[in-house]
Amino acid sequence: MLEIFYRLIDANELKASRIFSTFIVTLIILNVLAVILESFESLYQNHGRLFQWFEMISVIIFSIEYLMRMATVKCKYPGLSLSRGLLKYIFSFMAMIDLLAILPFYLPLMIVLDLRFLRILRLVRIFRIFKLSRYTKSLQLLGRVLKNKKEDLIVTLFVMTILLVAASSLMYYLENPVQPEQFPNIIASFWWGIATLTTVGYGDVYPITVAGKLVSGLIAVLGIGLVALPTGIVSSGFLEEIQSNNKCSENYAKYNFCPNCGRKLKD
Amino acid sequence: MLEIFYRLIDANELKASRIFSTFIVTLIILNVLAVILESFESLYQNHGRLFQWFEMISVIIFSIEYLMRMATVKCKYPGLSLSRGLLKYIFSFMAMIDLLAILPFYLPLMIVLDLRFLRILRLVRIFRIFKLSRYTKSLQLLGRVLKNKKEDLIVTLFVMTILLVAASSLMYYLENPVQPEQFPNIIASFWWGIATLTTVGYGDVYPITVAGKLVSGLIAVLGIGLVALPTGIVSSGFLEEIQSNNKCSENYAKYNFCPNCGRKLKD
Amino acid sequence: MLEIFYRLIDANELKASRIFSTFIVTLIILNVLAVILESFESLYQNHGRLFQWFEMISVIIFSIEYLMRMATVKCKYPGLSLSRGLLKYIFSFMAMIDLLAILPFYLPLMIVLDLRFLRILRLVRIFRIFKLSRYTKSLQLLGRVLKNKKEDLIVTLFVMTILLVAASSLMYYLENPVQPEQFPNIIASFWWGIATLTTVGYGDVYPITVAGKLVSGLIAVLGIGLVALPTGIVSSGFLEEIQSNNKCSENYAKYNFCPNCGRKLKD
Amino acid sequence: MLEIFYRLIDANELKASRIFSTFIVTLIILNVLAVILESFESLYQNHGRLFQWFEMISVIIFSIEYLMRMATVKCKYPGLSLSRGLLKYIFSFMAMIDLLAILPFYLPLMIVLDLRFLRILRLVRIFRIFKLSRYTKSLQLLGRVLKNKKEDLIVTLFVMTILLVAASSLMYYLENPVQPEQFPNIIASFWWGIATLTTVGYGDVYPITVAGKLVSGLIAVLGIGLVALPTGIVSSGFLEEIQSNNKCSENYAKYNFCPNCGRKLKD
Repeated sequence: MLEIFYRLIDANELKASRIFSTFIVTLIILNVLAVILESFESLYQNHGRLFQWFEMISVIIFSIEYLMRMATVKCKYPGLSLSRGLLKYIFSFMAMIDLLAILPFYLPLMIVLDLRFLRILRLVRIFRIFKLSRYTKSLQLLGRVLKNKKEDLIVTLFVMTILLVAASSLMYYLENPVQPEQFPNIIASFWWGIATLTTVGYGDVYPITVAGKLVSGLIAVLGIGLVALPTGIVSSGFLEEIQSNNKCSENYAKYNFCPNCGRKLKD
Repeated sequence: MLEIFYRLIDANELKASRIFSTFIVTLIILNVLAVILESFESLYQNHGRLFQWFEMISVIIFSIEYLMRMATVKCKYPGLSLSRGLLKYIFSFMAMIDLLAILPFYLPLMIVLDLRFLRILRLVRIFRIFKLSRYTKSLQLLGRVLKNKKEDLIVTLFVMTILLVAASSLMYYLENPVQPEQFPNIIASFWWGIATLTTVGYGDVYPITVAGKLVSGLIAVLGIGLVALPTGIVSSGFLEEIQSNNKCSENYAKYNFCPNCGRKLKD
Repeated sequence: MLEIFYRLIDANELKASRIFSTFIVTLIILNVLAVILESFESLYQNHGRLFQWFEMISVIIFSIEYLMRMATVKCKYPGLSLSRGLLKYIFSFMAMIDLLAILPFYLPLMIVLDLRFLRILRLVRIFRIFKLSRYTKSLQLLGRVLKNKKEDLIVTLFVMTILLVAASSLMYYLENPVQPEQFPNIIASFWWGIATLTTVGYGDVYPITVAGKLVSGLIAVLGIGLVALPTGIVSSGFLEEIQSNNKCSENYAKYNFCPNCGRKLKD
Repeated sequence: MLEIFYRLIDANELKASRIFSTFIVTLIILNVLAVILESFESLYQNHGRLFQWFEMISVIIFSIEYLMRMATVKCKYPGLSLSRGLLKYIFSFMAMIDLLAILPFYLPLMIVLDLRFLRILRLVRIFRIFKLSRYTKSLQLLGRVLKNKKEDLIVTLFVMTILLVAASSLMYYLENPVQPEQFPNIIASFWWGIATLTTVGYGDVYPITVAGKLVSGLIAVLGIGLVALPTGIVSSGFLEEIQSNNKCSENYAKYNFCPNCGRKLKD
């Protein structure tokens, strides 16, 4: 019995399983659309009831899905005991997202909350969009590249943070006496620093002193370098992934040739 | 007879065929220039007649070209029956663009339209610029790279959409109470989200709360990553295309030479 | 005699030749600095005489250099006749820049010109900075990569132009009725288009209609793609250049091994 | 005795050494946080005493660390005489940063300084963040790539400078008559040039003449190319680094295996 449920939820072989996935994905997209539409005040005032009903039904379905996944944990990790399997599942990344997507609905039923906090909690429903990643195969290549290059990318982020802190502190000392409202403290200069390093450049905060402009120009040029670093890392990641997939060697091996020089291999 | 027409339009061997292509390309460029010049009010008021005559002549020539291509469909797909060949041709990407480039001219003759809609239809003439791609060989490498990497690029777009939806929703909840005019609803926050993720940063909409600036900074940094992803994908695509063109190794192997140094290999 | 002059100017073996190069490079940099400093009104009013003297001396030295290069053309192209060598030299890229750098000084002596045009001609002196490239060896790798990838980069520019024309035309039709001053005609919308496609985003022109924002967002996303294309092309160009420089194969060849599999090669 | 100190500071084998590193890194991060928090006026006014005490204790600890490193210089460079080792150490990049991080504190004790200059000196404390790099191993790959590609990156910077000077000068001549306040001289136009070339585009300075917009558009497009160049250089650098790490082929060759498929080679 559980075996059937498990194959319905997790495997992709059965036709019913594919229908189930499509249904869940559609529900997630509809939920995201609901959050977006709800933000239009006039829509919410006229159809608030509809949104609340849709929310309730969605949460019930998602809760059933969550419980089903917990019930079939024995099939997922056949080697583990039930309690250990449950713990492993509950603290897995995907299960946490699933829980986060339904929890905010139950919270107000349990604890007394003031209404403004409740409104922000609703927002967490947008996390349901991340549930999609469970169902998308093509994201896996991307994920693999990012995972392989995780360390290099973190170092880039670290270099970026150092640059940001140094540049923003310098900027604060240079611009604060002239524009105390734009650069009131170093944390506030971070806003300028991020906008410049990432080359977004909103234009709400910018230096007006000559020294400030010099620093800003330097940081903008370094910003180009900071774009170059992750790009270079990701590029080489994609190439490595492709080259390791190139199964030419296997084909060559079949016919007993070296893939590089075309020489015959010893049987 | 049709055979001659077909070789005039589609093949590039005949000298007449090359003259025909050049003529069509020139006409397309002149049409684009006409659309641009027409947008200057003073020019249109003084030379409106000229623009209308040029438009009419162009459409007639493009229509003849379209009909000629339909007439020679038998030569293009010799294996298919005439009706199947016609259907296949009409729904090909290039033929759709050709049709789109002339249809707006005939539409007002058929249906009654108000003048404003008519004006927007005229715009479709700019699509004639895409007809150039039929005649440009060098676009093919680019097209091949993009085609090979289509799936990866779509996944990147998908990740971008998820980020955009999540960030814009969060931004709406954070900034709406403070700047209700800049962030009236989630769809409107998308405008901020796109400008930040793509690092355009017009500066018409930007967060003013501390939490909003934090989210904005994070999204700008992720925006750098989003620039890195397609760049990495396209880079590896170009390299693969180049490497697959270097078929030296196969040729060398045939003649028992090392692909790198060209020395003969010991048997 | 000419032989000695030629080796002084063009070759880098002699010590005197290296001193000469350094002198010319220094003079070029000083000229660029003079143009920059001259733009400060107070400096020019007080030291105008100095700038004019420096300008005259520089032009005389550059003229002598130019004449010397023309005189030694026989040594540069020994195979050609004097007149053909001269023609080939005068129309070479470097000689054109050299001429452009000194011509504006002589022009006012020959033709009668009003003073405003004269001022703009002066600007051409900034081209002297490009003379530096004759003396910089490390620019050659960059030049080689760009030359090898010239065609691909031109196609990218062509795609960019098509996108720009299509997007700007569309934007003109969408925004002109609402912001006639920002989008008076299609040529003016090009300004918005370039700022968006290159992700500069000054923020002086941006769409305010919903349809306009949609188009703008789409173009900004395509702009990321347009950054990815040249980057991918240039990346693969650098890699090819490096791989062709890797002279491992030669070293391996010396010791008679295949560079890939390490197998011994037939002598 | 010195040997023990040396292994405590420089080696990573001992457990005590790792505790010492962690302590220093924590202190550096706390110092950076202090600089940031100090910039909040209200915080500094209320807890100024605390900040001063923390500053004094930090400097004492960093000074002891600096002296310890100088004392153990004999163990670091066993081949050199004490005086030569000291000189080599003091002028090493890391020791200079260490000195820069503590010097500003001692300076006011030695020379008489006015208070505003003193305040700027304090900023140098932020350099302590760079001390972290001594303790971070993963920065080394990044450093190696940047070092290998140093020349190419400098050439890119050089090309960028030429473009910047040429474009800013041209812009000055075009825009100065119309916007004398935005483009007062060529140095001031550099601010526009940097913002455009790096695609930051703050929006405080932008051309308003048609010719100026043309130049600006061209420079923005070239700016995309300038992003492409370092990215391409860095990408190829990462790939080379990865490929040089794959020393499989050598190992395989030793045992007569094909490096790709692991099959034994004939012979």
